[in-house]
Amino acid sequence: MNVLIAPDSFKESLEAQAVCRAIRAGFARSFPEARYTLLPMADGGEGTAAVLSYALGGSWQHLTVHDALMRPIAAKYLLLPDGTAVIETAEACGLQQLAVNERNPLKTSSYGAGELINDALDKGATRIVLGLGGSATNDAGMGMLTALGMRFLDAKGTVLEQGGGQLADLQKIDAAQFAPLVAKAIFEVACDVTNPLCGESGASAVFAPQKGANAQQVQTLDANLQHFANICTQQGYGDYQNVAGAGAAGGLGFALMSFCGARLQSGFDTIAGRLDLEAHIIAADVVITGEGKFDAQTQMGKVAGGISQLAKAHGTPVLAICGSVDTAVSVLPEPFTCVVPSIQTLAPIEDVLAQGYDNIEKTAASLAAAIKLGQQVPTSSI
Amino acid sequence: MNVLIAPDSFKESLEAQAVCRAIRAGFARSFPEARYTLLPMADGGEGTAAVLSYALGGSWQHLTVHDALMRPIAAKYLLLPDGTAVIETAEACGLQQLAVNERNPLKTSSYGAGELINDALDKGATRIVLGLGGSATNDAGMGMLTALGMRFLDAKGTVLEQGGGQLADLQKIDAAQFAPLVAKAIFEVACDVTNPLCGESGASAVFAPQKGANAQQVQTLDANLQHFANICTQQGYGDYQNVAGAGAAGGLGFALMSFCGARLQSGFDTIAGRLDLEAHIIAADVVITGEGKFDAQTQMGKVAGGISQLAKAHGTPVLAICGSVDTAVSVLPEPFTCVVPSIQTLAPIEDVLAQGYDNIEKTAASLAAAIKLGQQVPTSSI
Repeated sequence: MNVLIAPDSFKESLEAQAVCRAIRAGFARSFPEARYTLLPMADGGEGTAAVLSYALGGSWQHLTVHDALMRPIAAKYLLLPDGTAVIETAEACGLQQLAVNERNPLKTSSYGAGELINDALDKGATRIVLGLGGSATNDAGMGMLTALGMRFLDAKGTVLEQGGGQLADLQKIDAAQFAPLVAKAIFEVACDVTNPLCGESGASAVFAPQKGANAQQVQTLDANLQHFANICTQQGYGDYQNVAGAGAAGGLGFALMSFCGARLQSGFDTIAGRLDLEAHIIAADVVITGEGKFDAQTQMGKVAGGISQLAKAHGTPVLAICGSVDTAVSVLPEPFTCVVPSIQTLAPIEDVLAQGYDNIEKTAASLAAAIKLGQQVPTSSI
Repeated sequence: MNVLIAPDSFKESLEAQAVCRAIRAGFARSFPEARYTLLPMADGGEGTAAVLSYALGGSWQHLTVHDALMRPIAAKYLLLPDGTAVIETAEACGLQQLAVNERNPLKTSSYGAGELINDALDKGATRIVLGLGGSATNDAGMGMLTALGMRFLDAKGTVLEQGGGQLADLQKIDAAQFAPLVAKAIFEVACDVTNPLCGESGASAVFAPQKGANAQQVQTLDANLQHFANICTQQGYGDYQNVAGAGAAGGLGFALMSFCGARLQSGFDTIAGRLDLEAHIIAADVVITGEGKFDAQTQMGKVAGGISQLAKAHGTPVLAICGSVDTAVSVLPEPFTCVVPSIQTLAPIEDVLAQGYDNIEKTAASLAAAIKLGQQVPTSSI
């Protein structure tokens, strides 16, 4: 029996690789001779580079870049053997790296993300896979582009300071020193939001508050990004502000489309393609996926949902082992054979999170034992 | 496929009959054509008469007796077609019927239990099955025996007042008016405690505190019960004080052995025998049991543990669906195929208890789906 084990991480509890091991340990109690393929998954957010590294190898590149407030920060990205760089922009300009009182999207910059891209291009990367989750910025990628050599000038020809708050003064974009390797590379952006750049569904209105902006600042940022988009269009960089995902990561999506020819796709599709997930699913007799919290969102682009659709397309049974399952989820939600929680007993959440490995192993063991029981109860006895 | 569904109630969440229905509903999603036998179980405590009624029919007898403080109380017991009465003594003298400030085992009496027995004997019962759980008393059954006509006299020949606190004055037991039908009936007592009547493991030391006794009262009660036992032996009623279970229900176990020829056995064995559980297990392809909290106690005489031993003896696979499973329980505890919790998500306990039916149905549905999957994955593919 070929068992494909392809779960997401269980956020705050267990990394996807450990989830894989726990599921295999549980299954192996009933099926020690089965062939297990461990394929830890991610959704394009945190952990994306790690799961690609696990499956595809490559080398981690370590360097010092600038964080969202332009302070030095140690960061890394993954360089795959085929010349693809996998960069999580939050490594440089992530919200988690700022103290709560430091969060101010008028000032924060995506500059460090550009430094990571620049380093990858310098090292010969011909394809850049970018994960945009968790950014602290709302600068429409001005910082990233600056790091790549673009100059953003005011009416006097002075280079703007960093931060989305400066874009009001933008008059001219000078591409004379823009890194030429950008045009030769393919940019794949993992992006699960469909927000436009501006307006009530835009980056500033929807995401800036959680990055520290108050209502007045949201208005300023939205106006600034609109101004930036107008200048871009005027200067011949297309008109991407209303394309789905332009508003991702404070407008990084917009900048990547406008200046780097980036293609945005779901995080799941990005990773599934890289991991050859579909071929693994075709080869499997059973697929086990899972995630920390299974809810109505799960079947809309998250890992378990995406895997279940691929499995359904190929007629492969798929089971989900989760941390918890929202009570609104129906009995046996299609197309899963079953979706099971692994909480063993009511306890404080920190205890339940700490018990993740054991709980997952027990749950996997029970499911495997039930499958094995089914093999011993012939269908003719039904 | 013959599926035997034989769970205990999920305390504070769902009665055993409803647990059965939820499990069947879940299983039937994958196995609509299977033959289901629903056998709600109990452990000899609360719910014992109800599960015997469900399986065996019979008629409920309603009457007014005395509660532990000798106040009128409506109570009922079950009269089975074969002449067996099933009496839960807590119907009359239960602790739950007393307010916390009313609990005083110096005063509480088992009189009402005797009234229930008397009524059953009067109605022709030839066998009395007694559940002793949840008593408010520590009177060594003096109240029960009084209701059956026994007279407990002090040195002056005056009949004692009710309550374990009175036994210090006992000088003579007068059986002249003791109900003659007692001797003609068979008494089966469901009892899962092995405490002797007196001493540090005795009724007073171990159980009286939770019935409202302070340390001084425990000493008094223990001395009183010892005095009572001495008188019993002196007057030729045997020497049962150190027999396992003599200390059950504040000494009711002692009285039933000494004066009624009662046989004590585990609650599980009492009920299993009445329900012909073993024959049902032999006829089943799969047994599903369960209980609210599965822990180290479960395999020591509780319903799921007892059923698992019978199933093991006959080679029938047995699965347990539980509310929660203590984290100390091992992976796939023998002899269960698996033991699975049904908590779907962390929530306040009152919410989880209220979701009992849905959670159990979902869990049963998932297990059944896994069994069915096993039937579709041939063993040759392993």
